[in-house]
Amino acid sequence: MPAPLRIGLIGAGRIGQVHAETITRRVKGATLVAVADVNEAAARACADQYGIARATGDPHALLEDPAIQAVLICSSTNTHAPLIKAAAQAGKHIFCEKPIALDLAAIDRALCAVAKAGVKLQIGFNRRFDANFQRIRRAVEAGEIGEPHILHIISRDPAPPPIEYVKVSGGLFLDMAIHDFDMARFLIGSEIEEVYALGAVRVDPAIGAAGDVDTAVTLLRFANGVLGTIDNSRRAVYGYDQRAEVFGSRGAIAANNNYPNNVVISDAGAVRRDLPLNFFMQRYIESYQREIEAFVQAIVQDQPAPVDGEDGRIAVVIGLAAKRSLAEGRPVRVKEVA
Amino acid sequence: MPAPLRIGLIGAGRIGQVHAETITRRVKGATLVAVADVNEAAARACADQYGIARATGDPHALLEDPAIQAVLICSSTNTHAPLIKAAAQAGKHIFCEKPIALDLAAIDRALCAVAKAGVKLQIGFNRRFDANFQRIRRAVEAGEIGEPHILHIISRDPAPPPIEYVKVSGGLFLDMAIHDFDMARFLIGSEIEEVYALGAVRVDPAIGAAGDVDTAVTLLRFANGVLGTIDNSRRAVYGYDQRAEVFGSRGAIAANNNYPNNVVISDAGAVRRDLPLNFFMQRYIESYQREIEAFVQAIVQDQPAPVDGEDGRIAVVIGLAAKRSLAEGRPVRVKEVA
Amino acid sequence: MPAPLRIGLIGAGRIGQVHAETITRRVKGATLVAVADVNEAAARACADQYGIARATGDPHALLEDPAIQAVLICSSTNTHAPLIKAAAQAGKHIFCEKPIALDLAAIDRALCAVAKAGVKLQIGFNRRFDANFQRIRRAVEAGEIGEPHILHIISRDPAPPPIEYVKVSGGLFLDMAIHDFDMARFLIGSEIEEVYALGAVRVDPAIGAAGDVDTAVTLLRFANGVLGTIDNSRRAVYGYDQRAEVFGSRGAIAANNNYPNNVVISDAGAVRRDLPLNFFMQRYIESYQREIEAFVQAIVQDQPAPVDGEDGRIAVVIGLAAKRSLAEGRPVRVKEVA
Amino acid sequence: MPAPLRIGLIGAGRIGQVHAETITRRVKGATLVAVADVNEAAARACADQYGIARATGDPHALLEDPAIQAVLICSSTNTHAPLIKAAAQAGKHIFCEKPIALDLAAIDRALCAVAKAGVKLQIGFNRRFDANFQRIRRAVEAGEIGEPHILHIISRDPAPPPIEYVKVSGGLFLDMAIHDFDMARFLIGSEIEEVYALGAVRVDPAIGAAGDVDTAVTLLRFANGVLGTIDNSRRAVYGYDQRAEVFGSRGAIAANNNYPNNVVISDAGAVRRDLPLNFFMQRYIESYQREIEAFVQAIVQDQPAPVDGEDGRIAVVIGLAAKRSLAEGRPVRVKEVA
Repeated sequence: MPAPLRIGLIGAGRIGQVHAETITRRVKGATLVAVADVNEAAARACADQYGIARATGDPHALLEDPAIQAVLICSSTNTHAPLIKAAAQAGKHIFCEKPIALDLAAIDRALCAVAKAGVKLQIGFNRRFDANFQRIRRAVEAGEIGEPHILHIISRDPAPPPIEYVKVSGGLFLDMAIHDFDMARFLIGSEIEEVYALGAVRVDPAIGAAGDVDTAVTLLRFANGVLGTIDNSRRAVYGYDQRAEVFGSRGAIAANNNYPNNVVISDAGAVRRDLPLNFFMQRYIESYQREIEAFVQAIVQDQPAPVDGEDGRIAVVIGLAAKRSLAEGRPVRVKEVA
Repeated sequence: MPAPLRIGLIGAGRIGQVHAETITRRVKGATLVAVADVNEAAARACADQYGIARATGDPHALLEDPAIQAVLICSSTNTHAPLIKAAAQAGKHIFCEKPIALDLAAIDRALCAVAKAGVKLQIGFNRRFDANFQRIRRAVEAGEIGEPHILHIISRDPAPPPIEYVKVSGGLFLDMAIHDFDMARFLIGSEIEEVYALGAVRVDPAIGAAGDVDTAVTLLRFANGVLGTIDNSRRAVYGYDQRAEVFGSRGAIAANNNYPNNVVISDAGAVRRDLPLNFFMQRYIESYQREIEAFVQAIVQDQPAPVDGEDGRIAVVIGLAAKRSLAEGRPVRVKEVA
Repeated sequence: MPAPLRIGLIGAGRIGQVHAETITRRVKGATLVAVADVNEAAARACADQYGIARATGDPHALLEDPAIQAVLICSSTNTHAPLIKAAAQAGKHIFCEKPIALDLAAIDRALCAVAKAGVKLQIGFNRRFDANFQRIRRAVEAGEIGEPHILHIISRDPAPPPIEYVKVSGGLFLDMAIHDFDMARFLIGSEIEEVYALGAVRVDPAIGAAGDVDTAVTLLRFANGVLGTIDNSRRAVYGYDQRAEVFGSRGAIAANNNYPNNVVISDAGAVRRDLPLNFFMQRYIESYQREIEAFVQAIVQDQPAPVDGEDGRIAVVIGLAAKRSLAEGRPVRVKEVA
Repeated sequence: MPAPLRIGLIGAGRIGQVHAETITRRVKGATLVAVADVNEAAARACADQYGIARATGDPHALLEDPAIQAVLICSSTNTHAPLIKAAAQAGKHIFCEKPIALDLAAIDRALCAVAKAGVKLQIGFNRRFDANFQRIRRAVEAGEIGEPHILHIISRDPAPPPIEYVKVSGGLFLDMAIHDFDMARFLIGSEIEEVYALGAVRVDPAIGAAGDVDTAVTLLRFANGVLGTIDNSRRAVYGYDQRAEVFGSRGAIAANNNYPNNVVISDAGAVRRDLPLNFFMQRYIESYQREIEAFVQAIVQDQPAPVDGEDGRIAVVIGLAAKRSLAEGRPVRVKEVA
């Protein structure tokens, strides 16, 4: 058995803790040797909880540690691109949460550093590793439903994020729908050429006051002729609504939500079941494991990362195109933005 | 187009009206020319509602009418066997509601008269004509699930009948489960050799006081080796629960309930749908049409009735065996009763 | 019981025969007294099959018949508007299949005649009478899912119509999606203000050669702020795909397809069920009955028709807007067309 | 954070490895410090794979190790009772796979030793920890379906075990249905008073030649009046079929199978989904984690084990009663056996 891959975690917030738990308990062949967070107390708490040897308030300290082979960048979005660049220059393999950045120039600088250093870069589009969506992808790839014609993605959160987050996140298209833009490309296996986005403020006026929408429907046209829609809402009262359907020349394939159990209760009022899993921690827990396993494997076996920097860049490009479409009230060709 | 089959209806109660509606509005090739009910006012009301030319308080008047080719016997159970006998002697084809009678001697006299007269006799086991159960039967017959090994039938009413009916109906096994005994034979295509019935009074003590049970599970052993269960309750608060499943060497096939619509609602409390269709009028409405069509066709084309007197007799025999099993607390071979 | 409403049928083709069967066998309070078709043999055959007293090759003959109180216009689309006008002038109540016409001027002339004559006009948007869609409408109306935010309609035919029909039908948006435009308005209870349609030829190049598309996704913006999508395909190999979903502030409600049975088969290959009902005759058979019953009732009780001429006109307007959107590659405000 | 509970594993076969994986990777607060297997090479391989410090060919060596606080007995059935006794005498807490033994005297000796030593004993009825069945139990306990009236359990394996195993396992009722007897008690919360079992050889004649059945339906009567059925087959070609339903005075609750994904594919042949999870490793993986967590917690917090020795004993008693019922062709009261 080879020595485990030594990983440093940057960012000990919510998603950082998910990955810490995943690496510590679920992933073979990797070990967390250090955690950094600008909030040093958070780093220390995380280290304590997961038995990580080293905690620091300085992310760059990890990049200088020769014992660390790879880093997971889970800090705030504005730090992603500079950290990617620095980590690449330090020769570390990189796993980075989405989005890489909100402006393309910063993304391009980061990707350029990665290319120059020859390190692996994987972007955290974990949903590609979900069993349901992978099943759809396999069906499309294998021609199980023939040539794909139409795609639908429904992606609704159970509740909006704090308004402070909305203000800096890049908005619905860049912090939420970005997962769906990536999913659309993943499921169809073709590039999106045009988007037309309609948006509305229906959930919380404060979101509108912050310059964002909380409800949106985006129409997609792919290079291979597929037509698609994405449905986003910041609040589905019944829980986390994550579905997709591809229709093609020989059939259709659709993924439904995941539930905490499959029990059906019939009483005098209704035939009912419990609500879907409430949010990404529950719904996508297995996909977090699988994406980290894939990252570790890509490094260990020196193979391309399954979701690379270009994938991270394109999703941002489409998000920017959707924002422009919404702002200008017209279909926007992706080329206009990229 | 040949002249329609001229039918007389005996019994203008609930099920009689179902058949009146069916023949008048849904079945081609047949017409109701007379209706009889010992309650002459009921006969007249029925005639008015469905545009039937003749109404009478005397069922036997119909048997003497040479213009009538066939009768539907929908009067109370105790009149079934004598009316079958009389109708057969009058040369009428006969459709009779279940059960033929509660005692076998009366049944045998009736069937003997039918055999002697050479008329058609069809028993009203309408569920055989339900699309779900027919699909199961086709699968079993075609070997779609291989050799059948196990059968389950769930058959629960939404609410118990009036206690006065319970007292004269022959009880749960002869007025309710009799449909399921017939269904079991129909689905498996083999005879039941042994029954073991457990029963309880859980819904209404008055049912127990009337000498009956309102909850029962009956274990069946078929001649071809299939094992089966029947689940009966007089009250499923969520509606009419009518399901079946056959498990075999190459798979399983199961029918669920029918619903007024297939709409699913997700709200903050549950993912739910409306209750199943509430009772036999709604659930089995199409099967009533198909059974009458089959009866008309059997007469017009001079073919055997699809559910004959022997089928009617066997279901009563199994019901009697189940009653004896419950009374004596032991498995009862059907041969002991027949 | 009042005398039945005396109806004349114009057009003895496929949909005409559906209505003939419906009125003859399923609808109380109405009777077909005459049928007209420019193909007189077809009229005669229809009369024979349904026992209609009079058959003629001249539709106008029905309008002159004082015994006829209402007509059903089921002839080819190009005859709808002139026949509506003539029937109105003759004082007949009118049920007319969709679309009223493909050009708005003709529609307006017809509606003007109806208004002047004070007769009822109902348009054949039968899907409004489907149990699933009615359940959604009731939920939206009652606030069961709160304020509606997003609508999705999926409407795919099992197979394309003959290419000769495609050439004269007005195309996918006016002969097929027109039902969905009406359904969108019906479910949401608000007017569509903007459409953006993407279309493609994926099913049959001959459809493209005829100047039409066979695959389309249309984005809708409603006056009340709801965003919607409509998914159309001329060929779903698995059958007739007719679904809808409304998402709102307090939940979501979705209708699935209808099936010939609900049986599930598990074998070594899959857990599977039979295909959905194959086409509109099976899927919407009950809605045809209910729409005619509503028409008869509107006349008998002198109430407004539940789907009136304005509804018929608006659906055409939206169809024209969708066609323009597709042709010009831009969102089109409905006002531009109307 | 307290020091983790130090556990020794006895038996490094299939289920032993499941627990080794569970403790090593999924359960907090416990650590595997030694593994024993009479096949010492198997013990060593297991130790290597899961990083367990000590491996031995002598199970009793673990009992003598003062550093070990608890043992997991996963060796062959005939060793369970003596090992429980020895472990209890050595003051170890004990988790033991089902069944404790096939004869009651041996069980009683083991349980007596446990009682005397005052150690915890938990029996491996892992299904009690499955999310679906726990949801049913909660509903029954909370009165969500009112008073329970009827129970159904379906429990079918994907394929029979090796015939050599069948010969020593105690047969279908003691090695397979024993889980269902425990589940029946768990779901209903009342004791089983009578069983009547029908069995057949339908899957493999070699099973019959070995004196066992491969297909069985068992009827249960509970002390609280509930009636129940258990359906067992050694081979469901579509995978692992594990369902349950409880019907009560205020409703019904049913658990379906678990699937690797929830994707539905519609093509020209069927509307279908992938087969259920194939066997207990996949289906019950989470329940294995939860039962070990419960065991660890019971020890750490000095609370009763959630499935104790008496539960283990009763399930065997019912299995013996079912065997006798099958052999003698009559209902057997559980008291006759116990």
